[in-house]
Amino acid sequence: MPITANDPTRKSWLNITNDTDFPIQNIPFGVFLTKENIVTVGTRIGDYAIDLGALQQLNYFSGIELTDDIFMQDTLNDFISDGKKTWRLVRNRIADIFDSNNPTLKDNKKHRDIVIFNVADVEMQLPVFIGDYTDFFSSKEHATNTGTMFRDPANALLPNWLHIPVGYHGRSSTIVPSGIPVHRPNGQTLPNGETVPVFGPSKLVDFELETAFITTDANLMGENIPVNEAEDHIFGMVLLNDWSARDIQKWEYVPLGPFLAKNFASSISPWIVTMDALEPFRCASPKQEPTPLPYLQQKGDYAFDINLEVAIEPENAEAITISRTNLKYMYWTMSQQLAHHTSNGCRINSGDMMGSGTISGPTPDSYGSMLELTWGGKNPIKMNDGSERKFINDGDTVIMKGFCQNDQVRIGFGEVSSKLLPANKMK
Amino acid sequence: MPITANDPTRKSWLNITNDTDFPIQNIPFGVFLTKENIVTVGTRIGDYAIDLGALQQLNYFSGIELTDDIFMQDTLNDFISDGKKTWRLVRNRIADIFDSNNPTLKDNKKHRDIVIFNVADVEMQLPVFIGDYTDFFSSKEHATNTGTMFRDPANALLPNWLHIPVGYHGRSSTIVPSGIPVHRPNGQTLPNGETVPVFGPSKLVDFELETAFITTDANLMGENIPVNEAEDHIFGMVLLNDWSARDIQKWEYVPLGPFLAKNFASSISPWIVTMDALEPFRCASPKQEPTPLPYLQQKGDYAFDINLEVAIEPENAEAITISRTNLKYMYWTMSQQLAHHTSNGCRINSGDMMGSGTISGPTPDSYGSMLELTWGGKNPIKMNDGSERKFINDGDTVIMKGFCQNDQVRIGFGEVSSKLLPANKMK
Repeated sequence: MPITANDPTRKSWLNITNDTDFPIQNIPFGVFLTKENIVTVGTRIGDYAIDLGALQQLNYFSGIELTDDIFMQDTLNDFISDGKKTWRLVRNRIADIFDSNNPTLKDNKKHRDIVIFNVADVEMQLPVFIGDYTDFFSSKEHATNTGTMFRDPANALLPNWLHIPVGYHGRSSTIVPSGIPVHRPNGQTLPNGETVPVFGPSKLVDFELETAFITTDANLMGENIPVNEAEDHIFGMVLLNDWSARDIQKWEYVPLGPFLAKNFASSISPWIVTMDALEPFRCASPKQEPTPLPYLQQKGDYAFDINLEVAIEPENAEAITISRTNLKYMYWTMSQQLAHHTSNGCRINSGDMMGSGTISGPTPDSYGSMLELTWGGKNPIKMNDGSERKFINDGDTVIMKGFCQNDQVRIGFGEVSSKLLPANKMK
Repeated sequence: MPITANDPTRKSWLNITNDTDFPIQNIPFGVFLTKENIVTVGTRIGDYAIDLGALQQLNYFSGIELTDDIFMQDTLNDFISDGKKTWRLVRNRIADIFDSNNPTLKDNKKHRDIVIFNVADVEMQLPVFIGDYTDFFSSKEHATNTGTMFRDPANALLPNWLHIPVGYHGRSSTIVPSGIPVHRPNGQTLPNGETVPVFGPSKLVDFELETAFITTDANLMGENIPVNEAEDHIFGMVLLNDWSARDIQKWEYVPLGPFLAKNFASSISPWIVTMDALEPFRCASPKQEPTPLPYLQQKGDYAFDINLEVAIEPENAEAITISRTNLKYMYWTMSQQLAHHTSNGCRINSGDMMGSGTISGPTPDSYGSMLELTWGGKNPIKMNDGSERKFINDGDTVIMKGFCQNDQVRIGFGEVSSKLLPANKMK
């Protein structure tokens, strides 16, 4: 079935600017709350949020097999369970409804008033209920940088790294959408040179610039998903700020991995950009040497050319962009991550989220964390108000953006923006 | 409010044996499927499964504030959200309904036929929807044993271990109830002496003898739960077999912790024994030296005296008990685990599960894994058919049991029993 929604020549009858992240070729999926306190699944075109529940009730999805309440829900999980064929049919239909050549909705003011909202008038929710959250560690540059800083520059990559898309389990209960502020965590740390730990607010709060993909339910427990089928079970992608407390992490993480250093908050962008929308931006990934084991081998292009950037906005100054990088630098692809994750029979459910791991590029201005950008605090970054940052200060807002761009179209993610609040007093 | 359900002198009009794990003083909670395909929340007394949804419809819970469908659900999450006061009221009422001095249900055959099933006629389900699963590592003996085997006998405990109830995130999607068989996982391993990994069925599949506790929703993101309030937010406990593939674990776990070595399956006993029922078995935990940081300090007894045992049943031989231990040996208490987990503001939801970590006692016959019992395979264990086990063979069933016993009453968990099937062929 062709992805007609991707037609780059299509224009919408909605009034949208050329530089939007959400042209009619994007059609992401999200969940929003209206001023009337109605929660619905929706999409976004330009600065308009579109109520898919209302569109279905008004019969705009006739001919597509959908349950009656598939969009009148507070998560996308059931829709994602419907599978790739349905996602594509719905996305193609939405493109058709808002195509400048289609007068049906355009000329029906009553329907338009029911279906179309200004994005400023809706409140974005978490788009999916995330049962399990896994985070990978798939940037060779990031793994090399952290290995160099914490262990041994000559052997920065651990022996398993080039063979395994290394990953670990994160915490679902603290994943929040863009706009929700995050408290600096309290925690145990071991001060330099001491042998007895102390407890208090983390002094080294950092972001991690990541993307994440959302899966559908694709296997039973005990079954694997082959690498060359894996992409069919990925619904789409979001931006992810995987907040990290470096001092807590350093003290706690041996031998079972990061725990409280990570699970105080992870922030995601609220619109899931579909893999179909990203199809024109498929590209080659870095050469993998040594060749991975057969269950991870794939032919063709499975990376995606997605520009990413991070800005810090201090409380009383303008935001400054501190890193620009690209998802295409990642050593392991999303399909390899999903194939590896299920190679032992681990069951994947609709709405599960899998993070890329910190995305660092080859140059120092393309690193995906303060830890790397300031090289452990040695090279502070100057803000627009003259102040310096080694890590994130209370009151700072961290803003991540992502977009794909070619000669014909721009497909963007919007942003994930979250403010760091001071640590709460312990009860 | 007194826990009248715990009265050790109470007898039930139901016909139950003296050695049952489920006397009228237990009253655990679970979810079962009847032969008529009805799913309900229930309890168990002796060998009877009792339909709490039906009991409520027949008005046996009048006077207790409960929503109409609180028990007519396929999980206990909503009931757990109702909080400790409600759990206690319901449990006290159930004890009263089945008390030998109460004729109401006893003398109503029509009601009895609706409410009471033989446990052999129902199929136990997962009792809760588990949003997040955390596993701790709180047995000093287990941490010392693994540190001795894998690192350095002189420094077996890592520096953080005596300060932190070390934990990590597990995978919720592969937690299954007792009775569900588990496939040996495929995975990457590094053969001894080699530098290039291979892929195939794990050769070192192991169990981990654990208990786990189930939480209620008790905090908002950013808030902590103080150690001395933590137990109020624990609904109850189950037995947990945290299946592990030691060869996969060894190759993958540095630096981010165990992942595919663990997430292929975790099996739990289906009846949640409440903290109220366990109250008579509260006991002192081992002395903590050095004194923990203030947020982990507690006065009084927060450990529980729960006898635990593991048996292996080969395909064509009788089961043999290979380990007997007790939860009371654990260095860190459940309240300390929960207080630590939330000390950074990590949000806890109703139905979350937290495992104790492998429970090993002080003697070699009280270790909680084959890894320790056979000391890495050096001392195989003889089965009843004369065969030997270093780890678990295909066709073996691993059976874990747990119970508390004093002069007056026995409160048991039943069992978690699961058979290891051969690895699936990769798709």
